[in-house]
Parts: sequence; structure tokens; C-alpha cells
Amino acid sequence: MSENGAMADRTTVKVGLLGCGNVGASVARLVAEHDDLLAARAGVRIEIVRVAVRDLARDRDVPVSAERFTDDAESVVADPEVAVVVEVMGGIEPARSLVTSALKAGKPVVTGNKELLASRGVELFDAAAEAGVDLLFEASVGGGIPLIRPLRESLAGDRIRRVMGIVNGTTNYILTRMTEEGASFAAALAEAQALGYAEPDPTADVEGLDAAAKAAIIASIAFGAQVTVDDVHCEGITGITTDDIASARDLGYVVKLLAIAEGVDGEVAARVHPAMVPAHHPLASVRESFNALFIEGDAVGELMLYGRGAGGLPSASAVVGDLVDAAKNLASGGRGATIGRLERKRIRPIDDVESQFYVSMDVADRPGVLARISGAFGDHEVSILSMHQHGLGDEARLSFVTHRAREADLRATLRAVDDLEVVKTISSVLRVTGDDE
Amino acid sequence: MSENGAMADRTTVKVGLLGCGNVGASVARLVAEHDDLLAARAGVRIEIVRVAVRDLARDRDVPVSAERFTDDAESVVADPEVAVVVEVMGGIEPARSLVTSALKAGKPVVTGNKELLASRGVELFDAAAEAGVDLLFEASVGGGIPLIRPLRESLAGDRIRRVMGIVNGTTNYILTRMTEEGASFAAALAEAQALGYAEPDPTADVEGLDAAAKAAIIASIAFGAQVTVDDVHCEGITGITTDDIASARDLGYVVKLLAIAEGVDGEVAARVHPAMVPAHHPLASVRESFNALFIEGDAVGELMLYGRGAGGLPSASAVVGDLVDAAKNLASGGRGATIGRLERKRIRPIDDVESQFYVSMDVADRPGVLARISGAFGDHEVSILSMHQHGLGDEARLSFVTHRAREADLRATLRAVDDLEVVKTISSVLRVTGDDE
Repeated sequence: MSENGAMADRTTVKVGLLGCGNVGASVARLVAEHDDLLAARAGVRIEIVRVAVRDLARDRDVPVSAERFTDDAESVVADPEVAVVVEVMGGIEPARSLVTSALKAGKPVVTGNKELLASRGVELFDAAAEAGVDLLFEASVGGGIPLIRPLRESLAGDRIRRVMGIVNGTTNYILTRMTEEGASFAAALAEAQALGYAEPDPTADVEGLDAAAKAAIIASIAFGAQVTVDDVHCEGITGITTDDIASARDLGYVVKLLAIAEGVDGEVAARVHPAMVPAHHPLASVRESFNALFIEGDAVGELMLYGRGAGGLPSASAVVGDLVDAAKNLASGGRGATIGRLERKRIRPIDDVESQFYVSMDVADRPGVLARISGAFGDHEVSILSMHQHGLGDEARLSFVTHRAREADLRATLRAVDDLEVVKTISSVLRVTGDDE
Repeated sequence: MSENGAMADRTTVKVGLLGCGNVGASVARLVAEHDDLLAARAGVRIEIVRVAVRDLARDRDVPVSAERFTDDAESVVADPEVAVVVEVMGGIEPARSLVTSALKAGKPVVTGNKELLASRGVELFDAAAEAGVDLLFEASVGGGIPLIRPLRESLAGDRIRRVMGIVNGTTNYILTRMTEEGASFAAALAEAQALGYAEPDPTADVEGLDAAAKAAIIASIAFGAQVTVDDVHCEGITGITTDDIASARDLGYVVKLLAIAEGVDGEVAARVHPAMVPAHHPLASVRESFNALFIEGDAVGELMLYGRGAGGLPSASAVVGDLVDAAKNLASGGRGATIGRLERKRIRPIDDVESQFYVSMDVADRPGVLARISGAFGDHEVSILSMHQHGLGDEARLSFVTHRAREADLRATLRAVDDLEVVKTISSVLRVTGDDE
């Protein structure tokens, strides 16, 4: 790509690519196809000179010649010609060791590995800070949507209060089908699997684990805090029923799986759970497999970033955006938007987190029932915002929306309510968020 | 803010602020209130050491001592202590000369001045490129929403095809009231004025001029092209009727004022006009005075950035984000995301731009009418996607949605249709966008 070898050293940033699956192959293609555009934007040419793969025999159909491939990833990181390392192999090891080696050797790293960052981010950010090199990871959350960069840079003059995200396309697709077609969870999941939106084993998506990893990264960046996936309270959508969806609609809400990161009194809370979101809220309009991050800041007010959260090409676009940044910084001698060391902050336990709640229960329809139930709420400091009765006699169901209450108090309330002989069964409990609380 | 004078030179970036109105005062307050946070993010302390205002007598209520104020803006730019200049005074002159002087003196500039950039951006970007310093302007479009930075940086690895924005809060508020309450344009405008969302003279907003300036900036950045406000075809919303809104709703659309920048075959087209947007499109959910930019790229697919498009605090948040960037680059010796020189590209004239159109007309309800009208469309190469008849006899109205057609062809069609004696009047013509075209 450069005119001659001597020029290449000063005008080309040479890249080692670790992994050449869906995202990696798209990165190689984008870098080759848009080479002039990228050179104009980075101020230097960008060239992929080494590619590490597990299986050398597989044809990757990328514009990188065969002799540049190797199955020895360490040799790519160690290659003196390689100035920047792009890690898109996924998983914790050997990705962790390879990224660490690269950083320690003073080579900027671009990664899209959410699993790695969510579990070992602290040590990697420390290593990057120590070496004084860029560690960029826009592709790790929300595919091609610029989320990390705005959190780090555009909002640098602001204090972020809360970030709420729809960060898993599979579950959002399932909930959209349940909402718009009245499909059951099982039917919607089967449809998502048939379309390739859900894996044959959908656990990581539907149990909220994928979203929890992203919540840890978001909380880390938004609050500059050490948050790992183990700090994230996680509930999936397997318990969501068509009844829940219908009740939400009756009250003017839609059900979404949210990843929420909050800064409260110097502490950080991070959690993933389904929630009822007002139908007029911008997050409610995020349909199908799209992702979005809704950010609340002191100065900026409300902000939403929306787009395709997954897919080889959108994620590759984010990787290449980071790569341009790393190349530009390398060429200009500057530092990129490395976030620095993450602080140790107290993780607020889920018991102390406050939310509004929706609770519905089947009850015996007789005088005094409401007084006894609302008494149980009041005994535990949970204050009721609204109540609706549906059905009569044996079919009577009461539904409540509370004011903001501590999770622990709500659980104590539910135990007390469940013990009342007038209450047959608690049919649904969902958090409510996005109202003017 | 620093421990001693000697330290200050190395660890503090000193800022000269030009203008201390709504945005400027908020910038001064944010910088003072968040000083530790900003220092952590920039790697250096940021301090406002000089403030230029027109009227020294006015009390600004900002945490900057009185002796730092001056009514001599040039002295602020020339002050050797001032390392970065923030221009939030607005207007073309003296802002243009001051920004140019600062850049020529090697001082990075942060500005929120859309008017200046939309008319004199080319020379300013040239001056910044020549001096090798940052010219940052996130606040010029979309208030606190990160728009410019994603366009420049996050999408650096992508080829942008089109950007569609709701970039004027006043007109979006008016259209929202017309849509949701059936208000007339005049009534909605009066309400917006009473609430302070519209100026006593609303011309710049309702005629689309404010949006056109932003469209020029967006087109410049998205396509790296020299586009000024004079290159932007501009139509406002004063002609939008409650009938238009109702017809749009019947067909499953909402009416929005859009700023559109498109790259087509190496040319750039930029325009502002009302358009019918499908109700399920993310832009349709942008209500009240909110702003959003919807970006379509080869790799990223669809992306939307949403938030408060105006207001002192959101805009100040964008200015301070840029200021952190400029300070960090200055301290690290690197270059920021200056966009470089803009290329001269052909501006595609509005005649050659293609859109879908909605056309409705009152007609004589008799046999052969549809054949004659659709013949007129066909004669001018405008192909009809769908047709609806509303009413009968004297009340008969036909509405058409076309496939994509050249503006010039559509206008020729309208002239021919208007000449038909079976057509009483063409009641409405609106572009349709955001469908899978």
C-alpha cells in the first residue's frame, strides 16, 4: 500500500490482527477497501501485516496474503514490525496474556472482547496506564454504536448520573415479538433461533449474562470505577409471561431487558433485569434486535445512542474507528482516550438499590382486602403510587405501582403480602423505570 | 487551583473565554464545579483565566473574579498566558477574526458557533490545518448530543451514505403539538413562543435557516467536503397544514423537519425540508424539542444519536468535552481530531436530488380521471407506488406516494397535473423519507 519500503516505516502503521472470524475478517476487508479514506483520517496508512488464527487450513476470504497468517499468536504480538494489536479472538485466555504482552511492549491495543474486559478490565487498564499506551474497546458494547467514546470523551465535562441500556439484541428481539404479536417466550425464542438471532444454547442471552458483562464495562467507564461482571446483579427474561407484557401495555409500558449503571453518593450500582419502561420513553422505541444506551447527565440532560448492537460489519466498523484513533495517536506522538486506572468504589448491593415496582396478585375479592395488603406495603416503608383492580370474585387481581423503594424493603413486603390469607398468589413483580421518578 | 505558580505552567491549561452569555456562563460554572473530574480526564488542570464580554457592567454570576473580565476580546486571544480559546459569542464578526488569530497563533479553539462554521468553515478548517492545532465544535450542532465526534472519529472506518437530522428543537416542538393535539401551525407556534421555545421573531427557526446552517456543518464533516449554508436547499414548516399532518397519519407517517446530507457518486447534496417519516422509524419517536441525528453507513448500518439539542447547560457540556480534549492534546503534544482541509466536491443541485413524494389533489370524480393523472406522472418518469381516493363527488381527493423520483421531474409532473381540467387543486406535496427506498 505504500510506495516503497523506506517510506513505509514513517508513513504506515502496521497492525497485527489476533483472530479472523466474523469480526476479524470484516476488519481486514474494511481496512483494505477503505485504505485511502483511513489514511486521510489517520494521517498515516494502516496496513494489516500479520494475522493469527487457530486453524490455518480454513479459507478466510480476506485481502491479506496467505504467508501473513500464522497460528502462533504470540509471534504476532512480539513481531517488531507490528505497531498496533487488534484482538478480536474472544474469550479470556489466551486473549488476556496476549493483550497484556502487547501493552507491556508499548503497543496500543484495540479489542472488542467484552468477556475479557468485564472480568479482567481492571488489570488491563492498569497495564495500559502504566505503559502509557492506548487500550480502545468501542466494539465491546453495542457493536458499531459509538457508546464508549461519548462516555469517555464527549461527556468528559459532565457528571453522569445513570446509564440505562438495551445491550442484547437477542432478548430485545424476543421481547419485541412477545409485545407486538402476543407470542409466548418459548415461541419468540424459537423464532429468534430459526432466524439466527439466538444461539442453539441461548442461556448467555436470555439469562442476561451477556448484558451483565456489558453493564460492567459501561459502569466502569461511566463512573471510572472498578466494576466486574461479578458485581452486576443479573436477572434474565425467562420468567416474563405474556400476562406481564399485557399488563405493562394496559398501564402504558413496554417490557425491556435493561442494563443499568448508576452512581449514587460515590457508590456504583450495576444490574441487569427486565423492567417496565413508559411507552413514550425513547428506549421503548428500540425494537427488534437494535441496541441503545440512554444516558442521564447533570449537564447534558438526556441522551440516547441507538443502532445495530451486533454483527460482524457494525462491530468491525467500531474496531476500525478505534484503529484509526490508535494509528493517529501513534503517528502524532499523542495519547488517545485511554481511561486511566479505574478507582475502587463501593459497589452498592442490590438490597440497597431503589426502584419503582409493579406488583400484581390474585386475591379473594372481599371487603378489607385492599386495606390489609396496603398495610403490608406500608409496614415495610413501600409507598403505593397507584392501584388497579381487574376482574371480580374468584378472578380478582390487584396490581400496584409503587413509589421508589429499596429492593430489600420490597422483598420483605412481598413475603408479608404472600403470607396474607386473602392473597392467593403473587403473579408478577417487575421493576418500573424511566418515569419521572 | 494549582499548588503554586511554578507548577501551574506545566500542569494547568489556561483558557480564554470569548463570550459569557447563557452557554459561556455555564461553561465557566462547569469548569469550576467539576475541576477535579476534568483534571482527572484531561491529565492537566483547566482554568479560565480571561473572559471577554461586551458589557462589563453586567453581573454574570460565574465563579471567575471580576478582574479577569475585559471588553477587549483581542487582548484575550493575544494574551501569552491563554493557551486555549473558547468562542461562544456567536455571530460572524468579530468571532471569525478572533478565531483566526487564535489558530494562527497556534492556540486550539473550541467553538459552538454554527453560523460562523456554516458560512466560513472552509477558511477556518484551513487555518487550523495550516497551524496544526485543534478546532473543535461539538456544541455547534445538536447541543450536548455527541454528533460531530462520532461522525469524525467513531465512524472513521466507515463510509457514510446519508445523515438525516432533526436539528431544530423549535420546529420539532411545533410539529409535535400539531401531530399530537391537532393544533394549527399558528396555534402551535404561539404556544412555543409562550413557553420560550420560539423567539418573538421565529423566522430563523420556522423557515429552516437554523437547520440549514447545521446541515452545512453536518455535510462538511460527514463527507469531508466544502459545504456552506448557501449550498443547502432550504424549505421551512410554515406551509404545513393540519391536513398534511392528518394525511400523513392516515398513511402511517409523521411529519418532521429534516436536515439531510447525502453523498452520491462523489457529489454531496444538503437540504432542509419537511418530510413524511414512517411512524415506526426511530426519527418518528423524537418528540417535543429533542434533536436527533440518524446516520446510515456502509458498515455501521443505522445509527441514531438523540438528546437535548439546545440550552445553555447541554451546549456547555459539549464545549467542556471539547475543552478537555484540547487540553489533553496540548499537554500530551498530540493532535486532536481536527478534520483537516475540506475537499471541494460538486454540490448536487436540488433538481437532481431523488426522493419519494406524497402528492394529494382535489379532483373531479368521473371516469378516466385516474388514467389521465397517472399518465401525467408517467410522462415525466415519475412512477407511482400507491394511490388512495378519499371522498366522493365534489369532495373527491386523490393522494399518491411515488417511487424515488428526481425533484425536477416531480415539479414537471406537478405542472402537467395542475394543467389537467379534471384536477381542481394540488392540495399537498411532501417528500417521503426513511422507508426502505
